[in-house]
Amino acid sequence: MRSSQDLVEKAALLGSLHVPGRPVVLPNAWDVTSARVFAEAGFAAIATSSGAIANSLGYDDGEYIPRDDMFAAIDRVARAVEIPTTADVERGYGLPADELIARLLDAGAVGCNLEDSDPQTGQLADCDEQAVWLRAVRASLDAAAVPIVLNARVDVHFRAWGAADERLAEAVRRARRYREAGADCVYPLGLANPSDIERFVGAVDAPVNIAFRPRGPSFGELASLGVARVTFGPGLHLAAKSWLASLAAKLIQGEDPYSSS
Amino acid sequence: MRSSQDLVEKAALLGSLHVPGRPVVLPNAWDVTSARVFAEAGFAAIATSSGAIANSLGYDDGEYIPRDDMFAAIDRVARAVEIPTTADVERGYGLPADELIARLLDAGAVGCNLEDSDPQTGQLADCDEQAVWLRAVRASLDAAAVPIVLNARVDVHFRAWGAADERLAEAVRRARRYREAGADCVYPLGLANPSDIERFVGAVDAPVNIAFRPRGPSFGELASLGVARVTFGPGLHLAAKSWLASLAAKLIQGEDPYSSS
Repeated sequence: MRSSQDLVEKAALLGSLHVPGRPVVLPNAWDVTSARVFAEAGFAAIATSSGAIANSLGYDDGEYIPRDDMFAAIDRVARAVEIPTTADVERGYGLPADELIARLLDAGAVGCNLEDSDPQTGQLADCDEQAVWLRAVRASLDAAAVPIVLNARVDVHFRAWGAADERLAEAVRRARRYREAGADCVYPLGLANPSDIERFVGAVDAPVNIAFRPRGPSFGELASLGVARVTFGPGLHLAAKSWLASLAAKLIQGEDPYSSS
Repeated sequence: MRSSQDLVEKAALLGSLHVPGRPVVLPNAWDVTSARVFAEAGFAAIATSSGAIANSLGYDDGEYIPRDDMFAAIDRVARAVEIPTTADVERGYGLPADELIARLLDAGAVGCNLEDSDPQTGQLADCDEQAVWLRAVRASLDAAAVPIVLNARVDVHFRAWGAADERLAEAVRRARRYREAGADCVYPLGLANPSDIERFVGAVDAPVNIAFRPRGPSFGELASLGVARVTFGPGLHLAAKSWLASLAAKLIQGEDPYSSS
């Protein structure tokens, strides 16, 4: 089904889509249905959301899902579409770097997110330790000879680390370290202010992933700020869930769930 | 987690909701997220849809999904909600009756649909053979001492069997046989015409399940026709998929996916 060559080509394609100032938009799927909908809409690649997958399978986000179940879900998504799939694998589920990469490739993923805070306590990882971990993942990637796109999440803003006026500098410091360690892309989750995004992009020599937010910068603004990749985390899944809740509310009132009124 | 007593109570509750003329409305879930949305909306019980589950996991409907995967999906849904869950298990995935019942109970389901046509060829089952099968399932149910609600699907209309003017009589004949064999409810899939529904309900001495259809009879009409249960098959999942496709179409145009315009 999946040749090594196929994975190499998909990984290279995904990497090539990360162009600062012309961001690739990656909708986050959670199952085969959502993955196919996004592929059919014409997206060039898709991501997964660990939170959305966990929710759809009955787990809280934060590595509570058994890792075999998470990789099985990633596998179903990646198998369902022809376009590249990048996987949100939280902190790596306790796997050694080489096993993490082997399992990603086995699942058909050609990119991955790794975050620098504890998914359960919210505690930021030590920056040096995270850099060592990312370097090990990079070495395993290089050994695997598939150019998986390594996206290093920087959780300084997301976790509201320290004082507000110190966050940008700390996020930049971490992003630079992760880039040196071999990250292909850096992802400062929670960074939302346009001027902060612009400063961050200017300070790190790497493609930058920004999470799209309701009432945040538009796609056009994110492009003009130099962003290279836009994702949604669990946002599209939550939007679908809200829509389904509104359908259920109609239905329980005895209304036709299929009417568009 | 699940006591036998809990299953007995849930099965009895589900059975008691089948009141001709005051139909229970069972939305069909396909994952934990959808199951929880329906439970939170206030439904008294939920069903699963084999087609929707299969689609979300990457399979075509029609027993193409490995049965372990289907039962695992049913288990996740049933585990996620406090209300009774009834499971669509197609033709039973080739399991002997006692094993089918054991697996349903193990998954936490307190009701099941069984259909009388081949999911892959569409060929109607022999009525006598189907009655023998349902009788075996009934015997296994009774032995298990949990009053699982056995819903016998009658696929005469769904499969467009024979000449149109012979279908109602054949559907009634089958429904009566399945009721004699121990079905708690009969489900003439594809029966949509109000006068046919009324004649069918009048001719079979059993609670009747009708699938709600766009532009078909309203919930009030189905109640007045004597229907005891209304379900949606994969309809709510397909509606959610259509909604997601419209969101994806906005997104790929660069529009804010979260805006309600």
